[in-house]
Amino acid sequence: MDRRSFLRNSALGGSAAAATALAAPAYAQGNRTLTMVTTWGRGLAGVHDAAQHVADNITAMSGGSLTIDLKAAGELVGAFEVFDAVTSGQADMYHGADYYFVNQHPAYAYFASVPFGMTAQELANWYYHGEGQAFHDELGQIFGLKSFFAGNTGPQSGGWFAKEITGPEDFQGLRFRMPGLGGQALGKMGASVQNLPGAEVYQALASGAIDGTEWIGPWADEKAGFQEITKFYYTAGMHEPGPGLTLATNLDVWDSLSAEHKKIVEVASGEANQWNLSLFMNNNAAALQRLQAGGVKVLEFPDAVWDAMGDAARETLDQYAGDDIFDRLRASYEASMQSSSGWITRSEGAYRLQRDRIMG
Amino acid sequence: MDRRSFLRNSALGGSAAAATALAAPAYAQGNRTLTMVTTWGRGLAGVHDAAQHVADNITAMSGGSLTIDLKAAGELVGAFEVFDAVTSGQADMYHGADYYFVNQHPAYAYFASVPFGMTAQELANWYYHGEGQAFHDELGQIFGLKSFFAGNTGPQSGGWFAKEITGPEDFQGLRFRMPGLGGQALGKMGASVQNLPGAEVYQALASGAIDGTEWIGPWADEKAGFQEITKFYYTAGMHEPGPGLTLATNLDVWDSLSAEHKKIVEVASGEANQWNLSLFMNNNAAALQRLQAGGVKVLEFPDAVWDAMGDAARETLDQYAGDDIFDRLRASYEASMQSSSGWITRSEGAYRLQRDRIMG
Repeated sequence: MDRRSFLRNSALGGSAAAATALAAPAYAQGNRTLTMVTTWGRGLAGVHDAAQHVADNITAMSGGSLTIDLKAAGELVGAFEVFDAVTSGQADMYHGADYYFVNQHPAYAYFASVPFGMTAQELANWYYHGEGQAFHDELGQIFGLKSFFAGNTGPQSGGWFAKEITGPEDFQGLRFRMPGLGGQALGKMGASVQNLPGAEVYQALASGAIDGTEWIGPWADEKAGFQEITKFYYTAGMHEPGPGLTLATNLDVWDSLSAEHKKIVEVASGEANQWNLSLFMNNNAAALQRLQAGGVKVLEFPDAVWDAMGDAARETLDQYAGDDIFDRLRASYEASMQSSSGWITRSEGAYRLQRDRIMG
Repeated sequence: MDRRSFLRNSALGGSAAAATALAAPAYAQGNRTLTMVTTWGRGLAGVHDAAQHVADNITAMSGGSLTIDLKAAGELVGAFEVFDAVTSGQADMYHGADYYFVNQHPAYAYFASVPFGMTAQELANWYYHGEGQAFHDELGQIFGLKSFFAGNTGPQSGGWFAKEITGPEDFQGLRFRMPGLGGQALGKMGASVQNLPGAEVYQALASGAIDGTEWIGPWADEKAGFQEITKFYYTAGMHEPGPGLTLATNLDVWDSLSAEHKKIVEVASGEANQWNLSLFMNNNAAALQRLQAGGVKVLEFPDAVWDAMGDAARETLDQYAGDDIFDRLRASYEASMQSSSGWITRSEGAYRLQRDRIMG
């Protein structure tokens, strides 16, 4: 029995039943309120903003007939409990990064980001016009979710290092903070990977307990204050080249929505994807200028480091091979990435190199 | 008196009055129908699709309470008459590329594309999180429009040439089809610029009446069949690096919409911007692979050609200097472009170069 059938038939599961039990207040005056839980602390720059933006737009477009009540991480359930909360019907929808749910299914990694994976634009190409959305739906049928992209942080920075990186051997024993599959890849390069919660990273770097950390990008990194500790900043990184954020609705709740409300949730999510990406891009651009003006050295890893990262990333993804959905999805994703990249490199890529050479 | 005051006070102008006169059918059963005219022939790949997509989403999200009736170019008014049709109240909204309206105001060029201007992502950064939308609104106050981006074609190709381009001198006397400011720039390089309508381009190239043409990108270019005539294809171009498409509503009609309907139009437009960009990107990528497999030589202009294009583009834009809005907008746009590019080059740009080097 797949998980969805289990949930539909269990006493805990059926969210339709739960919705009925709660219907009296939620349907007052014909209106409906859905609870959105998130993987973000209230106010966390950029990512909480994306959740709030999509929630507000759904409420506003429906004239309040579909009101979204946003509960940030810890307000109803913890950040990493949102998946179970929504599949069980405790909450109606979550906003989060799907790579947090690789233990539910490893293929979820691709709906946020994998090492050496797609940029935000490549991901949109695959998701909206290739097979991406269909794979998201296939996973959703297993777990009882209807998912849409609803945000993107854009490329995340390689990180802050106490010392300049001169070759792959510098990662041997390096105590570096990086969660997820990217961290696994660094581990394969010999790093001693630390998975510290956000609140502890600054102190660990300042005290020398770690030799470096990635965080998000210039905007969030500047807020975290890492430039006060070290000036060596690697802007390009391999670990999260353009992670998507997801709005996932309990499938029974989704099925119970009117056609208008379904379309409102879908379009609000799509709009949030670009709104959020351009928010990050614009704020990262301004923050990078401030960091550089403040003396931060903006660096790139040497080719030999990138080569070693490439080997480590492939090895990290290969360990999930053998799962049917993972294998089919990976093949689809990699073919789409190669196709997108061929065009982007020869059009926008070549153009930007020339424009920036000439216009400065 | 500015144009909007004129329109508000003239017998022809007031679209609110026109809407009232037409109200009986439009408001049947509390529903409202708005007429959208477009600058695109019905079915024109990618661009008509964007107009239809946003129209359908507005209709669906409102449950039909705001229905958009799309009239393609020629069905109610001609392609280049849509601006006047909407400002005068003959139609309620247009979907089109705002650089068609540089004779109304030269600053409209920036809301589609200018030579050596922004990519689609840079444009979104400026529009949604910099000053772009505010400038669009400032122009809208003059003409009586409320405008939103609602599509983007992504980077347009440099074009098809009968012979390989080896230096800027090859543009002397070259009979080349390119409309708009890009064409003006090529003219400054010595080209004999032709502004042929789309339907005549294939025959002109096949007969040798022109030496080359740009069109849109691999997807549309392949449909046009230029690969049957010449194999020299320059994918990167300077003329339209990421043109935005606009949905503009008559301001009196806009002011008369409910808060829900305003939000629906705004969010549907924003969603269409990314949906359409990724549609073009994905289809261009696939078409480029087919063109290459069919023997098309994918080329890049030499640096000296780009240098000459850069000088010509600057000269083209400089001729509009002195207009208050144009000058303020250009300064805002160029500062935002430089900031965005600084970040994108050092993050996504550096990453993609490494990934494509390693992963192939």
